[in-house]
Amino acid sequence: MSTQPLRVIPLGGVGEIGKNATLVEYGDDLLLVDAGLKFPEEEMLGIDLVIPDLSFLQEVQQRLRGIIITHGHEDHIGALPYILASIDVPVYATSLTCGLITVKLKEHRLLGKRKLEPLVPNEMREIGPFQVQPFRVTHSIPDAVGFAIHTPAGTIVFTGDFKFDQTPLYGPPPDFATLAQIGQRGVLALLSDCTRVEKAGYTPSERVIERAFDDIIRDLPGRVIITTFASNITRIQQALYVAARHGRKVALVGRSMENNCAIANELHYLDFPEDTVFRLDDVRRFPLNEVMLITTGSQGEPSSVLSRIASGDHRQIKAMPGDTVILSATPIPGNEETVARTIDNLMRLGSDVIYEPLADVHVSGHGSREEIKLMLNLLRPRYCVPVHGEFRHLVLYRRLASEVGIPTENVLLAEIGDVIQFDDVGVRRVDHHAVGSVLVDGVTVGGTNEVVLRDRQHLSRDGVLIVSVTLDRTTGSIIAGPEVISRGFIDPSRNGDGRLLEEARERIREAIEEPAATTVEYGFMVSKVKETLSDYIYKQTRARPMVLPVITEV
Amino acid sequence: MSTQPLRVIPLGGVGEIGKNATLVEYGDDLLLVDAGLKFPEEEMLGIDLVIPDLSFLQEVQQRLRGIIITHGHEDHIGALPYILASIDVPVYATSLTCGLITVKLKEHRLLGKRKLEPLVPNEMREIGPFQVQPFRVTHSIPDAVGFAIHTPAGTIVFTGDFKFDQTPLYGPPPDFATLAQIGQRGVLALLSDCTRVEKAGYTPSERVIERAFDDIIRDLPGRVIITTFASNITRIQQALYVAARHGRKVALVGRSMENNCAIANELHYLDFPEDTVFRLDDVRRFPLNEVMLITTGSQGEPSSVLSRIASGDHRQIKAMPGDTVILSATPIPGNEETVARTIDNLMRLGSDVIYEPLADVHVSGHGSREEIKLMLNLLRPRYCVPVHGEFRHLVLYRRLASEVGIPTENVLLAEIGDVIQFDDVGVRRVDHHAVGSVLVDGVTVGGTNEVVLRDRQHLSRDGVLIVSVTLDRTTGSIIAGPEVISRGFIDPSRNGDGRLLEEARERIREAIEEPAATTVEYGFMVSKVKETLSDYIYKQTRARPMVLPVITEV
Repeated sequence: MSTQPLRVIPLGGVGEIGKNATLVEYGDDLLLVDAGLKFPEEEMLGIDLVIPDLSFLQEVQQRLRGIIITHGHEDHIGALPYILASIDVPVYATSLTCGLITVKLKEHRLLGKRKLEPLVPNEMREIGPFQVQPFRVTHSIPDAVGFAIHTPAGTIVFTGDFKFDQTPLYGPPPDFATLAQIGQRGVLALLSDCTRVEKAGYTPSERVIERAFDDIIRDLPGRVIITTFASNITRIQQALYVAARHGRKVALVGRSMENNCAIANELHYLDFPEDTVFRLDDVRRFPLNEVMLITTGSQGEPSSVLSRIASGDHRQIKAMPGDTVILSATPIPGNEETVARTIDNLMRLGSDVIYEPLADVHVSGHGSREEIKLMLNLLRPRYCVPVHGEFRHLVLYRRLASEVGIPTENVLLAEIGDVIQFDDVGVRRVDHHAVGSVLVDGVTVGGTNEVVLRDRQHLSRDGVLIVSVTLDRTTGSIIAGPEVISRGFIDPSRNGDGRLLEEARERIREAIEEPAATTVEYGFMVSKVKETLSDYIYKQTRARPMVLPVITEV
Repeated sequence: MSTQPLRVIPLGGVGEIGKNATLVEYGDDLLLVDAGLKFPEEEMLGIDLVIPDLSFLQEVQQRLRGIIITHGHEDHIGALPYILASIDVPVYATSLTCGLITVKLKEHRLLGKRKLEPLVPNEMREIGPFQVQPFRVTHSIPDAVGFAIHTPAGTIVFTGDFKFDQTPLYGPPPDFATLAQIGQRGVLALLSDCTRVEKAGYTPSERVIERAFDDIIRDLPGRVIITTFASNITRIQQALYVAARHGRKVALVGRSMENNCAIANELHYLDFPEDTVFRLDDVRRFPLNEVMLITTGSQGEPSSVLSRIASGDHRQIKAMPGDTVILSATPIPGNEETVARTIDNLMRLGSDVIYEPLADVHVSGHGSREEIKLMLNLLRPRYCVPVHGEFRHLVLYRRLASEVGIPTENVLLAEIGDVIQFDDVGVRRVDHHAVGSVLVDGVTVGGTNEVVLRDRQHLSRDGVLIVSVTLDRTTGSIIAGPEVISRGFIDPSRNGDGRLLEEARERIREAIEEPAATTVEYGFMVSKVKETLSDYIYKQTRARPMVLPVITEV
């Protein structure tokens, strides 16, 4: 049978290549695997979210047969509302994942306007020319799957985020039989999670958390506050079981925490033990040693419940001595400082805070080196494209794959936008699309581009100086000004700074009034004023604030 | 004997209370312990360094008898040039520390203008009413000491940064005998390093690094680049020994690396093995497998040697396949992302990078919980003021101190500026000085205050919009404008954004021309323009850029 080229194209996400979204292309047809968002990097000033490039997806939307989702975490479903706002394409996901997507679509007023198709593990699904086989994996959320995508040109496997949890809290252990079967049938290419390839050994089972919670909470005389990701349904379940065991009443606090738990409970993926979960107002009527709050804020996000408690800003919950706060998460790189400050503030209010490494109150949802090797040995792929890590993780994955016998040349290290083709020649990059990421800034999607970001960085370093001067259109002489306004540069209300600006004004006046050899043109005058001020300020302070002349001719 | 009150006042440093500088007060006399700087936190936009409050020190300079320094790391000596620029007071330090201070004074053209007095461990030194007894401790730099400060009111001990390294690379093990002796004589108060109080057990000896380097470097076929702090003399020494053993020629690269090593070598704290250390230009003539470079840049600082190599910007050193880069340091909280990016970029250039947790190429210079307990048990202080940690560390230290029998009420958790008094009543806060920290921004010391920082944060989030309009002074009608300039907000060269600004101009025009009930005052017009634009932009985009009206009346 003659086949068409089979390709994958990692999209969006910054740093973590292909984690948030990857396109699979067979002939004319496309299938998108996951549609997640990423939190912005430090230097993306004023940016709230980063999502995959929408314009590229719009360009190819006629060829896009569907979006298949591995699991319900933000970094795999968070971009869906933005994509579905402009593209009408069916989304396929397992039951809990569909539920969590529904919450998002409702928020963005898209519910009912887009097709959401339920997937069942091990039930084959035909989507265009793709035979999609979802298989169960274990992760820190129930109902997570990977995909074997069968095409006439061969099978591509996406692991999704996974660990091999032999004692998962919800559902059966990982589906080794199906994985082995897929492996025996032959895997052309494996696109594997490699986030945790730096860690030797195995990641502990999620179940160890329950014991840790138990040990901490058993004899506590006061209130307990457990903070974790709102999408970490498994963690929340364990907290609920521990609460029930120790007779504590639980309130779920934070909008995403409430919404996610409600839908997970409705779909029977989150079991509310009898007489345990209450509204916050009701829980507050119980004695403190019978109370547990489960809140958002494990990353120290300023508007989250825990941060507001820590800064004394939460309307209903005041931290106090006797409280014990358990931070059941590790900071995502870049959030260490805000998390540390949250802990410090809670301790200042007299609360006890338990966090890693003080106690084992968090385990990763990603497999360590031995688990990544196990996945490779179950599937025995011909080619590998590690897709869920930053570049150093991809390099380490290639080295680890060679330990289990995959030749180095069969492991391709992709960058975002690479078009990677699998065929008889091997695995290779055949093209590259300039797909960027889209920065979401408040409600503007993609309104912030490189120019705007660069300006923000400049403004944030040294602030801005505005020179305003009004000139006579015919004579070129000064009618009003120059005035110099400083913001984020120096504080003109202070004496020394005021003198600096006074002197700067004098220099600008001299520059404008300097006799010119020829008639002075407007553009020339603007540059002259700008240079005069920039040079003077640099000489005096070694700083380079943004200088904006506003010259009006009347 | 009647005594005067004995007090300590933790100064400067952000977050880490008293790490960088602490004042000791006995009667009218003051002694400053350490004068370090801190690297700025994430939201301190445009700030390079943070140093203790200079104006407060200037106020009390008549009473200040001296500055005593525990060891030569940046966070303990880095503020000295700024302090000594305005205050003439003698500085006391051990030999290597004096050498490293000399390097700084030279850079700031203060050498020879200030008194630098050598201290010898265990030799008592009289400084005003203070009997200062330096005692040897082990840390990641040689010649580190702690201080027992004897006064008529009792003895205060500063541990300085310490670990109990039983097999230090340079010099004898920690001076247990002296510590025990000081303890037996009686310690009123202990001000202890508690940075690593979160870690159980003991911190490994610095010496383990040499074995790790040996194992990695033994059979490497290419060039080796080792990156660490320029002040980590002990680490550099081990790299030199390993290089010599494997016949590699070493170049020290980076200004601070070269300067620090030169002075440490001159003072016999850093041994250059024969035929090992060369200039970079000379080393480049050797085959790659006979070369080792030791560079700065372990924190991913953009201008450091390693970052420039990683981004392909270093004039003389180009990273390539076959190179092995060893990152012998862990990122300081807040630097994780830039360090990760440096690793990614080096790997993109084909270099191998070895870092924690891939290999044990770094150990901390601070003692873990068992060592902190050992210090407490050697000294048996009456009162404790943990001073080298963030607030949560202080809380954990108090709990740990109670494990070895120090009553909780005898451990005081201080904030910067607290005046802490030790007397028969106990330990207590008797006063608080509003001492801040000084932000160093380029060459301006303290030119950046809260107002300026807040403006920078605002600018960095949503950028700035400037409205310029010229009005007729008598009629109030518009002569020129309104013009709207956008920077860091939206990109007006794009179509949609241009229309937004066009519409905004129209709104401002209407607002100005709106018939007013009474005569319109200038200030009123400015607010009206500002509100009109802010409201319109917020309604359209949900963003709140800084709005600056420039209204000229002619």
